[in-house]
Amino acid sequence: MPKSNNSRRKNRANVYLDYAASISANPSSIHLFGIEAKNKLQNARKKVADVLNAKPEEIIFTSGGTESNNLAIQGVILAWQKKELPHIITTNIEHPSVLETCKLLRKRKLAQISIVPVDVNGIIDPKKIKKEIKSNTVLVSVMYANNEIGTIQPIREIAREIRYYRKMKKMKNSRGPRKGISQTITNSSFPIFHIDAVQAANYLDLNVEKLGIDLLSLSGSKIEGAGRIGVLYKKKSIALANIFGGGDQEMGLRPGTENLPEILKFSEALKLTQKIKEKEVKRLTKLRDYFFEKLSEMSFDIKFNGDLRNRLPNNVNITIPKIPSDLLVIELSAKGIMASAKSACKSSRAEGSYVIKAIRQIQGSTLYDADPEIGGVRFSLGRQTTKADTDYTIKSLSEILTKLKKWYN
Amino acid sequence: MPKSNNSRRKNRANVYLDYAASISANPSSIHLFGIEAKNKLQNARKKVADVLNAKPEEIIFTSGGTESNNLAIQGVILAWQKKELPHIITTNIEHPSVLETCKLLRKRKLAQISIVPVDVNGIIDPKKIKKEIKSNTVLVSVMYANNEIGTIQPIREIAREIRYYRKMKKMKNSRGPRKGISQTITNSSFPIFHIDAVQAANYLDLNVEKLGIDLLSLSGSKIEGAGRIGVLYKKKSIALANIFGGGDQEMGLRPGTENLPEILKFSEALKLTQKIKEKEVKRLTKLRDYFFEKLSEMSFDIKFNGDLRNRLPNNVNITIPKIPSDLLVIELSAKGIMASAKSACKSSRAEGSYVIKAIRQIQGSTLYDADPEIGGVRFSLGRQTTKADTDYTIKSLSEILTKLKKWYN
Repeated sequence: MPKSNNSRRKNRANVYLDYAASISANPSSIHLFGIEAKNKLQNARKKVADVLNAKPEEIIFTSGGTESNNLAIQGVILAWQKKELPHIITTNIEHPSVLETCKLLRKRKLAQISIVPVDVNGIIDPKKIKKEIKSNTVLVSVMYANNEIGTIQPIREIAREIRYYRKMKKMKNSRGPRKGISQTITNSSFPIFHIDAVQAANYLDLNVEKLGIDLLSLSGSKIEGAGRIGVLYKKKSIALANIFGGGDQEMGLRPGTENLPEILKFSEALKLTQKIKEKEVKRLTKLRDYFFEKLSEMSFDIKFNGDLRNRLPNNVNITIPKIPSDLLVIELSAKGIMASAKSACKSSRAEGSYVIKAIRQIQGSTLYDADPEIGGVRFSLGRQTTKADTDYTIKSLSEILTKLKKWYN
Repeated sequence: MPKSNNSRRKNRANVYLDYAASISANPSSIHLFGIEAKNKLQNARKKVADVLNAKPEEIIFTSGGTESNNLAIQGVILAWQKKELPHIITTNIEHPSVLETCKLLRKRKLAQISIVPVDVNGIIDPKKIKKEIKSNTVLVSVMYANNEIGTIQPIREIAREIRYYRKMKKMKNSRGPRKGISQTITNSSFPIFHIDAVQAANYLDLNVEKLGIDLLSLSGSKIEGAGRIGVLYKKKSIALANIFGGGDQEMGLRPGTENLPEILKFSEALKLTQKIKEKEVKRLTKLRDYFFEKLSEMSFDIKFNGDLRNRLPNNVNITIPKIPSDLLVIELSAKGIMASAKSACKSSRAEGSYVIKAIRQIQGSTLYDADPEIGGVRFSLGRQTTKADTDYTIKSLSEILTKLKKWYN
């Protein structure tokens, strides 16, 4: 039975006869427990909104990052009212929940897609995004920071290009023969700009106004103590359609009884993350650069993947020519070190990393001559990671490579 | 950092450098923590499968009942390959996550729908379902037990009608000019039969073989201690498409990092539920019937909603003519009794209950003359409900009605 903290009720009956609504209190119920739950939900929504410099009604709670990205992308396409096939621009290093969703929409003949490639350092050129924008481009979706190689994308610059395009389109429309009709205003809100900020949440600025974006995805599973839910920020003026049919929860955009316990954890954890961000970024940047330094001092051929400056403070990604990254991860695991080969979210599919592939295909890449089978090993640091951890990792890696060199040379 | 219970590791390094995959261990990771997580996930899947008499690979974990129902219904429609518009049969008392999903598909021109009305007791006639089946009927979706009035639907009988139709269709096809081609076999698996078993999980038989169904939805939020996830059982032979784009989790049907902590809770709680089911059904049936008896002895005009026999052992639903159900729930709440007016999942929409409306519109209904504005008050009992709770509720209700009679007569 749901507990209530209200001490005034201590001497009163407490009879819960709403098991069919939910085992714990349901924010949609109109009884006292329901109202208490609703208030908690609204407080959590406000807390998240404050971190993003958004309005509470712009925060939609989902089941996770994958659902947030799907709701953003599919939601924009499903809300598109015109006959012309909508067009999406994205990049070749997006998380599968963005890239596969775009491909799914293309396969279902609901959208055209353009996939813009990153440069050799894993960074997207805003000018390349701009070049792809067409009259039917309804959505640009670019990740804030990459999940494999940690590269940070120039979100503000891309937002600027999009704003400029919208402005030009609006001016062109208002000067043209259709002057004054309502379409002028509607058109000027396209393309909508979505960013997947799942990997960025702990370390980068999440101020949606400053970023100049319209939709932003977050995931609790990448934030310490945040619980297994997701968030989609949706600018009030953006038209979005629900994917699921059901109740009216989450401004009608995400039906289903709200996962209140996890939502409460998320809002607290996100708030804390922002509070300690500056300090953690400093600490981890130092640790990451120390890690890179030690790696470069090693007597093995180690390639660093992704831009060394424009990257998350917690990400180190390396490729060791000739040595399969999966094997390295297993060897590290045997020494008590949990690292990752490729994107964990996709790793059950037995194929190389498409992110590593994206940067190694480019001439001038240090990986250009490396075996295409070899992916990258990602070390992603966190709140509990210490200098001793990195020292132990370097030492262990050295031992492993010394051992493996015999077979792989 | 994820904890490991493995005591052998106590004297060894424990360096977690996979924060970007997940703050807690991700079953898709190939390191030791990932493998441990994967094993736990597989055990949980097996436990759930055992309860349903299904195979582990037939169990898909989702974020909740709403997603399970959407995946079942949208998944069948999205997997439909033929040019002809697919047809869905459902009932007029389904949960919004079924009814609104069907309407959404109709609105998006992806499906035709037929909504079969229930009888005066809130029970569906299998013959009426049978009558609606057409050559393009790909899905029949009927709830196992209703969330508002607790009526239990004749699932086995509907399954029998569907099986009979499939058999006839197969025979007809194999005798016809297309004899021997593969379409014969494909066709005979339609219509697919889905049941929303969210409200039934605690009390009714969940053996999918005995029920004769193809898809079954469950929700953790209605099972004590089960955690906030959902389950969709999908018979292996059924073609289902994913709604979300993303990773390969859950047999490619539900991408996104698995919510392992809640999945583990769910599998344990579902198992326990089945263990104590027989005893709980007996205890609650007695309690429910006692509740009905006491209500009928009261000197107020109280209408009982839904069949009194074919109903969940934990459901009591009443309408008191002239007295708005919302007001009753608020008055009860003030006395420490948490009951519900209408379906909590839908209650934020300010409209009467469509379930109560469905049974009161029928001539012969005891509610036939009642104010259409007046919904139903649902008392749903659970594991902690005692006889003292029902006595207190009856006493409180009597006091409330005595007070309200002055205004509403």
